[in-house]
Amino acid sequence: MAEASAVRFGILGCANIARKVSRAIALAPNATISAVGSRTIEKATAFARENGYPSTAKLYGSYEAVLDDPEIDAVYVPLPTSLHLKWAVLAAQKRKHVLLEKPVALNVKELDTILEACELNGVQYMDATMWMHHPRTVKMKEFLSDSQRFGQLKSVHSTFSYLGDQEFLKNDIRVKADLDALGALGDAGWYSIRAILWTTDYELPKTVAALPDPELNEAGVILSCGASLSWKDGRVATFYCSFLANMAMDIVANGSKGNLRVHDFVIPFQENIAPFYTVESSRFGELSISIHPAPSEQNVSTDLPQEALMVKEFSNLVGSIKGKGCKPEKKWPTISRKTQLVVDAVKASIDKGFEPVEVVY
Amino acid sequence: MAEASAVRFGILGCANIARKVSRAIALAPNATISAVGSRTIEKATAFARENGYPSTAKLYGSYEAVLDDPEIDAVYVPLPTSLHLKWAVLAAQKRKHVLLEKPVALNVKELDTILEACELNGVQYMDATMWMHHPRTVKMKEFLSDSQRFGQLKSVHSTFSYLGDQEFLKNDIRVKADLDALGALGDAGWYSIRAILWTTDYELPKTVAALPDPELNEAGVILSCGASLSWKDGRVATFYCSFLANMAMDIVANGSKGNLRVHDFVIPFQENIAPFYTVESSRFGELSISIHPAPSEQNVSTDLPQEALMVKEFSNLVGSIKGKGCKPEKKWPTISRKTQLVVDAVKASIDKGFEPVEVVY
Repeated sequence: MAEASAVRFGILGCANIARKVSRAIALAPNATISAVGSRTIEKATAFARENGYPSTAKLYGSYEAVLDDPEIDAVYVPLPTSLHLKWAVLAAQKRKHVLLEKPVALNVKELDTILEACELNGVQYMDATMWMHHPRTVKMKEFLSDSQRFGQLKSVHSTFSYLGDQEFLKNDIRVKADLDALGALGDAGWYSIRAILWTTDYELPKTVAALPDPELNEAGVILSCGASLSWKDGRVATFYCSFLANMAMDIVANGSKGNLRVHDFVIPFQENIAPFYTVESSRFGELSISIHPAPSEQNVSTDLPQEALMVKEFSNLVGSIKGKGCKPEKKWPTISRKTQLVVDAVKASIDKGFEPVEVVY
Repeated sequence: MAEASAVRFGILGCANIARKVSRAIALAPNATISAVGSRTIEKATAFARENGYPSTAKLYGSYEAVLDDPEIDAVYVPLPTSLHLKWAVLAAQKRKHVLLEKPVALNVKELDTILEACELNGVQYMDATMWMHHPRTVKMKEFLSDSQRFGQLKSVHSTFSYLGDQEFLKNDIRVKADLDALGALGDAGWYSIRAILWTTDYELPKTVAALPDPELNEAGVILSCGASLSWKDGRVATFYCSFLANMAMDIVANGSKGNLRVHDFVIPFQENIAPFYTVESSRFGELSISIHPAPSEQNVSTDLPQEALMVKEFSNLVGSIKGKGCKPEKKWPTISRKTQLVVDAVKASIDKGFEPVEVVY
């Protein structure tokens, strides 16, 4: 049940993912669905009905109408990536706070235009990377930050893949050059890159090199690819993302004293409890015929699903801006931009025949 | 208890790992320890006593004496890598079957000389990569080979690391340029490279590219490094090996229909039972708020430890040559050579500033 001061959300477009986020807005205690806009009023109406929208929710036959509604505080933008520049900038100019679906932009130049519009208009920006908001993520970070248990980070590997069926590989917006030109890199790779940066406290790598050879569709959109990231001090990271492999959502972080693993980091297997695995001070047994200790499973429960916690956190920030005159929180645009910089570097490395590409903030 | 026709082993040198393999020879039903040779008779005597050698075992003050003993069928060679060329070739020339500790050679040219000597003299060659012989490895391979459950291999990641203490990093033979010049790449990387080749049915990658930047000691020996391997059809593999990170022994294989993980592939946490994890046909739940199914753990028990099974398999082959006039099994030298080729390619890529290096059999 939303508070009286709840942040009033407008949804731009009826993408599939908007169903999940509509539920999240309904679940978040400080947010409420105020409007949905689609290219036709019929689609907006059907979407609202199918997703149990409150009768007070306004239905619009255009995105503009949502942005022009003075009773909307914030918009969630799940449009195809190629439309983000136009609609996120316009939303900011209309003083709407922006929760932007990933991939956030086709490149960092576009993202910078979006971020500048948000900053100029004093609105909060956040990308919709849901797993960042799960309490498990906090617990895992505590382990990674523990100099006694984990030590210094040495290597990370992350995979995010899922198997697109024939319909997906033919018609989904994520494989269309004019809609989501970054393909699996922008969609799945975004998560693994964010995960890697999360393990390094968002310290950017010195260089990024794509792995030969990505798989492309006929239009040249990436269906699978990988890359390595290298820091000056010997830390390395690798990732693999794909629409052509069974679902995997792994982060494996190797520290000088301990290791962390998680196998459902993007979307937990179960909504209300999520596991991760740690081991520390591993050693050989006598004669090296065994290893001690075995990894241990740790479970973190949550009352709200991670996407509702995302909406709650975003709405908290919006509420502070609205109610207390606070400035927008810079963490979210900063880590979004860093993620995009690495996405761009992987793409540049692919285009340069897998040469290492320097990453400069 | 060894059979009457047991293969009679001589051990060349009193390396730490020879303690484990001595126990394995004692446990294997078709092998027996006949002799140990060290640079001094005192060391050989102490080693035999400390490791509970049978009173019938002969003690020699040189490696040559073991090779000259007509009652020795096979030798286990745990000497520093730089000594393998000399002693493995000499052993073959003396018609001793060769169980060779890894890294087997400093480069493929050396290994080819060893393999030629073994072939010319009709003796069996096998490298001492113990995990290959665990029944879990067979079970995991069944899953990887199942076109319905695992589908086609898409990506693999493997890590083998362990934390060397100050004493290790200063004095262990594995960090000495004149003894084990390949450092962590030869020692730990060997296992991950073998694991990757095992997942591809030993199909060599087209190219190998080292990850920038490996960590080296003052003598230039590799303390940590990684690489990516790429096949023509979009399959990719990455690995990381290190003496500077907490112990990790991972294989994560991603197929088009299923995934396999194992986290103690080199040495199982426990000697008599070993787990691995599979998941297949993973899919999003309604609204993509969950993932089904969760991975399942499978445990494989073994009566004999993997190193005893290695000795048993090697001794079986030796027995067939001795007793039935069979030819040596070519699988083992072939996969050893392929592993070495990839080790060499990683080293070459490091030396060339991380350029991709072609791998040619």
